[in-house]
Amino acid sequence: MANLAIIGASGYTGAELVRIIANHSHLNIVELAADRNAGKELAEVFPSFQHLNLPTIKRVNDIDYSTIDLVFCALPHGASHNIIRTIPRNIKIVDLSADFRLKDQEQYLQWYHQPHSAPELLNDAVYGLTEFYREQISQARLVACTGCNAATGLYGLLPLIKDKVISTSGIIIDLKTGVSGAGRSPREHTLHSEVSEGFQAYNVATHRHLAEFDQELSTAAGSSVAVTFVPHLLPQNRGILATIYVEGNAQEIYHSLHDYYTDETFIHVLPFGEHPSTRHVRGSNFVHIGVVPDRSNNRVMIISTLDNLTKGSSGQAIQNCNLMLHLAETEGLLSLPLYP
Amino acid sequence: MANLAIIGASGYTGAELVRIIANHSHLNIVELAADRNAGKELAEVFPSFQHLNLPTIKRVNDIDYSTIDLVFCALPHGASHNIIRTIPRNIKIVDLSADFRLKDQEQYLQWYHQPHSAPELLNDAVYGLTEFYREQISQARLVACTGCNAATGLYGLLPLIKDKVISTSGIIIDLKTGVSGAGRSPREHTLHSEVSEGFQAYNVATHRHLAEFDQELSTAAGSSVAVTFVPHLLPQNRGILATIYVEGNAQEIYHSLHDYYTDETFIHVLPFGEHPSTRHVRGSNFVHIGVVPDRSNNRVMIISTLDNLTKGSSGQAIQNCNLMLHLAETEGLLSLPLYP
Amino acid sequence: MANLAIIGASGYTGAELVRIIANHSHLNIVELAADRNAGKELAEVFPSFQHLNLPTIKRVNDIDYSTIDLVFCALPHGASHNIIRTIPRNIKIVDLSADFRLKDQEQYLQWYHQPHSAPELLNDAVYGLTEFYREQISQARLVACTGCNAATGLYGLLPLIKDKVISTSGIIIDLKTGVSGAGRSPREHTLHSEVSEGFQAYNVATHRHLAEFDQELSTAAGSSVAVTFVPHLLPQNRGILATIYVEGNAQEIYHSLHDYYTDETFIHVLPFGEHPSTRHVRGSNFVHIGVVPDRSNNRVMIISTLDNLTKGSSGQAIQNCNLMLHLAETEGLLSLPLYP
Amino acid sequence: MANLAIIGASGYTGAELVRIIANHSHLNIVELAADRNAGKELAEVFPSFQHLNLPTIKRVNDIDYSTIDLVFCALPHGASHNIIRTIPRNIKIVDLSADFRLKDQEQYLQWYHQPHSAPELLNDAVYGLTEFYREQISQARLVACTGCNAATGLYGLLPLIKDKVISTSGIIIDLKTGVSGAGRSPREHTLHSEVSEGFQAYNVATHRHLAEFDQELSTAAGSSVAVTFVPHLLPQNRGILATIYVEGNAQEIYHSLHDYYTDETFIHVLPFGEHPSTRHVRGSNFVHIGVVPDRSNNRVMIISTLDNLTKGSSGQAIQNCNLMLHLAETEGLLSLPLYP
Repeated sequence: MANLAIIGASGYTGAELVRIIANHSHLNIVELAADRNAGKELAEVFPSFQHLNLPTIKRVNDIDYSTIDLVFCALPHGASHNIIRTIPRNIKIVDLSADFRLKDQEQYLQWYHQPHSAPELLNDAVYGLTEFYREQISQARLVACTGCNAATGLYGLLPLIKDKVISTSGIIIDLKTGVSGAGRSPREHTLHSEVSEGFQAYNVATHRHLAEFDQELSTAAGSSVAVTFVPHLLPQNRGILATIYVEGNAQEIYHSLHDYYTDETFIHVLPFGEHPSTRHVRGSNFVHIGVVPDRSNNRVMIISTLDNLTKGSSGQAIQNCNLMLHLAETEGLLSLPLYP
Repeated sequence: MANLAIIGASGYTGAELVRIIANHSHLNIVELAADRNAGKELAEVFPSFQHLNLPTIKRVNDIDYSTIDLVFCALPHGASHNIIRTIPRNIKIVDLSADFRLKDQEQYLQWYHQPHSAPELLNDAVYGLTEFYREQISQARLVACTGCNAATGLYGLLPLIKDKVISTSGIIIDLKTGVSGAGRSPREHTLHSEVSEGFQAYNVATHRHLAEFDQELSTAAGSSVAVTFVPHLLPQNRGILATIYVEGNAQEIYHSLHDYYTDETFIHVLPFGEHPSTRHVRGSNFVHIGVVPDRSNNRVMIISTLDNLTKGSSGQAIQNCNLMLHLAETEGLLSLPLYP
Repeated sequence: MANLAIIGASGYTGAELVRIIANHSHLNIVELAADRNAGKELAEVFPSFQHLNLPTIKRVNDIDYSTIDLVFCALPHGASHNIIRTIPRNIKIVDLSADFRLKDQEQYLQWYHQPHSAPELLNDAVYGLTEFYREQISQARLVACTGCNAATGLYGLLPLIKDKVISTSGIIIDLKTGVSGAGRSPREHTLHSEVSEGFQAYNVATHRHLAEFDQELSTAAGSSVAVTFVPHLLPQNRGILATIYVEGNAQEIYHSLHDYYTDETFIHVLPFGEHPSTRHVRGSNFVHIGVVPDRSNNRVMIISTLDNLTKGSSGQAIQNCNLMLHLAETEGLLSLPLYP
Repeated sequence: MANLAIIGASGYTGAELVRIIANHSHLNIVELAADRNAGKELAEVFPSFQHLNLPTIKRVNDIDYSTIDLVFCALPHGASHNIIRTIPRNIKIVDLSADFRLKDQEQYLQWYHQPHSAPELLNDAVYGLTEFYREQISQARLVACTGCNAATGLYGLLPLIKDKVISTSGIIIDLKTGVSGAGRSPREHTLHSEVSEGFQAYNVATHRHLAEFDQELSTAAGSSVAVTFVPHLLPQNRGILATIYVEGNAQEIYHSLHDYYTDETFIHVLPFGEHPSTRHVRGSNFVHIGVVPDRSNNRVMIISTLDNLTKGSSGQAIQNCNLMLHLAETEGLLSLPLYP
């Protein structure tokens, strides 16, 4: 059994970590921290945890790291880097925030509007897109989980860029995400009355996950790739679906994706011409990808979906944790989607 | 044309007032006030009003009352009484808050936890349940609109109490309300992720609308009546449905309701044994009431539904305004429910 | 007062016609027909119509056309053309189905898989996109209302094609629609359990509204235009939002749209860089269009939204009816969106 | 490993069985049957099962029982009894339908409007409310799972009846259920457009689960008990919440429930005065029960919630299966609720 601390336990990604770990055979939650709920039991914050025996929530600064093997940091971006630089160096860390995803601290400043307080850790941090960085993750001290939107797009695009079967210009990612990705802090635009029975774009062409697309796609291509990215907010809680428009040969695209993921437990490429739904991955660590040709030549749609809180965040984090602790990679992550 | 000021224009009931008034032939919005959005156009706050020509939002203290005939006050309880006592005495007022509903200032203190700042106005204020206080409303300077939950229950109960066809003890009101009644201020429990795909009770046996039930039912009965009242929060935006359990003869109950409302435009008693749905009154000023007998003797269910923002609040307010200004009572209020 | 018959009164577009006409000063419903509900009152099918005085539903073949001025035909495609060819030639017709939208009966056969039974009427039929065919509509006997998806895209594209400010190749329409567009016939994929809390594409690159896009965009361009069109199903009832990716200069695009619609009551182009939401047009006849530049040169996003049952179908139908009967074009259609 | 057949695999309860069994260490699905989907893979019907290796769906009559230890029958009531009487007598059966719940075949005829085809099995069938019939279930050949609504009510009431701490007259069960309980067969009233953003009662005072309440409550009381039962349909997929109104002493009621369930893994009585939400049991086998006193003497509200597809049906079925096969009772059933 490995001993864990979870920092930021009272947000949605914190709750999702606890939900998954409760059915994991080799992980033991020793410390839970969340400043604004310190002193409470987690079951008071999330009544779905009535049935668990968990430590009382502490303040972050009160965590006793002496027996901890690995820390999950589920704080918002901006808060995470200030905490992570204080964690003893012998302890492994999986960060769910954006703070260690970008290799270039100038990029961090530009997109997140603050200087990075731990730039010395950026080089050691491994980008947490497991199926593309598995070896580095298994050796890493610090893994920075991929943003949920970025992951949804990258799963559909990275093999194609690597295999050079699509044009790297003109890529369009029209993405639709559930509202739980916006977190649990009360804001007007995430109220039920503002989300339900409505649909709109947000952060059009300015969303921060563009920085991750730029970094990862350009690295894979060996040259600068700049996609068009338009996220939209869905009137549902969980699930991201990206409709990706590329130019290339549909069969080549299909085979590139199919071959890349053929041995991957969590990534499922649907039969050619079929396309996925968020509801068939909900609450699970699975990704479904479909390839559909347009009626016109050379245009192909790749449709990729995952659950933002699971494979897009906390499930991905536990998959990476399993690798870092040399456990079975799929341990605790094989629950099937909840349907309906 | 009567000239209006709307105070609290940037909340949901304020928006609903504007929506209805936009299609009203005899009301003219001259002043819009909302402190936190002062200086903005209302269409910036509510893009559904792109098409209207409205005054810029002011601070409440900056309202020019010189040409105003009637004020709608759509502030939260607690804020309303402090403003209303400052409005020139020649101006009529429809208050959508709870501040002038209770006749007894001790009751106000007990339920709303603050002393009332304008107790001298309480005697003049008329309770805004139009179908029961029509004459007083048409003569009133200040009308205090009924709470949305209280209205839903009272429409089903008041004729029966007056006609003495039910027992006044053992009445149970199991009420379910949409989330828009909780307003637009961001709070954790009204986030989409906390409301959607979930259902629960709230304020069980302690909800403040109990004070209105007590006052109105006891007045109608001529003796103290204390109902059991359990509200629940629905995963939907609009609509309240109360399932009311009473003891009496089902046919007598049906005829009491049917007769009382037979000439009322907005209150529709369904055929005996049928029961209503919130979706068939959504966005309208209509109330649907059904009477269904239990299989056992003497137990009867009365099911009453209305839209909390329309008949439960802003539609009711305009109906009362029409009476106070001696306009046709139904003017602007005959739009049909939006379905689906 | 003009006398109307509504055929197909018990579907959603039929109900939406009745809802709007109930507040229209110059339209009088004389006949309601729907074979599967013949003999019922419409209020039995749609309890939201309790308050109306309407004729009993008849079988279609039993309609008495002697006093009818105009027929709304709200049958599904395939059923409509067989009925419409039997309607007396002196009566005007607004058809809400797809049956008279395509000028070329070969196209109809190809997309709708049946021969057209009234090809002689195709030439007379006017495509019902009001803002582009206003003169023809006001002279027409038969108007074929635009498909709801097609309308959403065409409002964003037609001025740009006419003004030649965008490339006619490479246009992508990523569209998201609420489920009420699928109608009221029970099917597995439109059950609440199959729609709620989920999102997916459907009919990718094969949707029948492609035929309308082809016809209208090619006509406007004077040359063949073939867009990429991917519709998705939203977990909400009403509303369509199309995110349209084009190549051109963002300012030119904005001005083209702004100028084209500057005198149109129902089409509102938002300030440059802003984008719309389905919830701000819900239940109304308004269209909101936004123009947002991509970070990269020359790529521009046009985001267009309308309510599929109102401006996308029954509201559009009444707007066309107003023109055909030489009434005020906006009569009955100025109700504001229901929000929230 | 025990070998299973699942009959009725393509409905929601069938899918829920497969979802749970996929993470069960001692159950092996050998046969899947569903007449209308025979010949398909289950992953074609439910794409969430892409990742499983399952037998192809057969027709029910083609099941090979030779290696089967236990059959789950997830057919609708009325269909189930005709199949179950043909299953070889050495095979254990868990029936999820209503067909073997009522001991009295006259009651079955009265409530389900058909004669029972296997009355000889009724005496052997054990009612599947695990926490009350554990011993009999572990010895049973045939277990009839409790109806989801009945279970929700009975968990809140049975200990109180047994302990005689409430009056057996005047009990009111105001129940609200998600729509997945209505199954996957397309019907107008379960369409998204008919369910979403709306709320209503159904089968008021006539719901068939009344027969289960009558049978079980009367048996527990030793005398006839007839409750008032009003079910309502929620605009959500999963979850049932019953607000139960009883007369008694709140503390006695609390302690009766608390003591009865103190050693039960799946039944959690919340601290006195707190009340549960459907969202905190969603997708899990847990039941949450709260006890809240009314402001008036002697009236007490018991609020009980569970997931209709899990503890209300398929989870309950697997819990019973575990007992019948002498496996650990909680095996496969400890997954936590999905939240949000």
